[in-house]
Amino acid sequence: MPKLNGLLETVLFVEDLSAACAFYEEVLGLQKFRSDERGCGFVVPGAQLLLLVKQGVTQEPNQTPGGVVPPCGASGSMHIAFAIAHSEFESWRSWLESRDVDVLSEVSWERGGRSLYFRDPDGHLIELATPGVWDVY
Amino acid sequence: MPKLNGLLETVLFVEDLSAACAFYEEVLGLQKFRSDERGCGFVVPGAQLLLLVKQGVTQEPNQTPGGVVPPCGASGSMHIAFAIAHSEFESWRSWLESRDVDVLSEVSWERGGRSLYFRDPDGHLIELATPGVWDVY
Repeated sequence: MPKLNGLLETVLFVEDLSAACAFYEEVLGLQKFRSDERGCGFVVPGAQLLLLVKQGVTQEPNQTPGGVVPPCGASGSMHIAFAIAHSEFESWRSWLESRDVDVLSEVSWERGGRSLYFRDPDGHLIELATPGVWDVY
Repeated sequence: MPKLNGLLETVLFVEDLSAACAFYEEVLGLQKFRSDERGCGFVVPGAQLLLLVKQGVTQEPNQTPGGVVPPCGASGSMHIAFAIAHSEFESWRSWLESRDVDVLSEVSWERGGRSLYFRDPDGHLIELATPGVWDVY
């Protein structure tokens, strides 16, 4: 069978695009590579893309010059996790606190990994995880 | 500010866990690294993890021995994209058709990239994208 080369895009649906963009750019330090009234895209280290899409704009098929993008759209609290180094765990907690981000909890996993949990402006659950959370990470 | 090392986990919420697991394992060829009644996890080439979580099981805080995982949960059609090589585009279309997956559309982007769109068993919109879809990919 053919091969996948990686997970390229992850999408979070957001209500207030400018608040969400500011959060991912200023609090998480992601590099924005595009932005329009429908959404914005960030490059995540490791050749991945995080896309923020305004709620509702993808509910209809999107006719592009090169073909139709089928509709999608979800509501509620989605979850993503970013990888961080063990050595950056305390810096991240301090940084988040300095940016008035409420750290909801901290979890120590049996394999030695640690996670910090907080929410983005849309209530999506964001995790920062050090190696040792899973047997494959 | 501290650094992120990558997007580690992406979560899709699913109704029928065994149908969803079978799809990602058999149709997309992902390697399952864990599975229980709450969800299952797949390794995606490129050091990423795709987690399928049964709808509802994360609605309450999850007390683990090492701390509390806050709740999350979303409904609707989420969207993720996997990276594929240009040279694998036709093989992927044929493979999906051979697995009775309905390819909803094919899009040619102005930068030369191409995308195939289809749905997983929960209606999440899955894309396979070759380089040339974005200016950063």
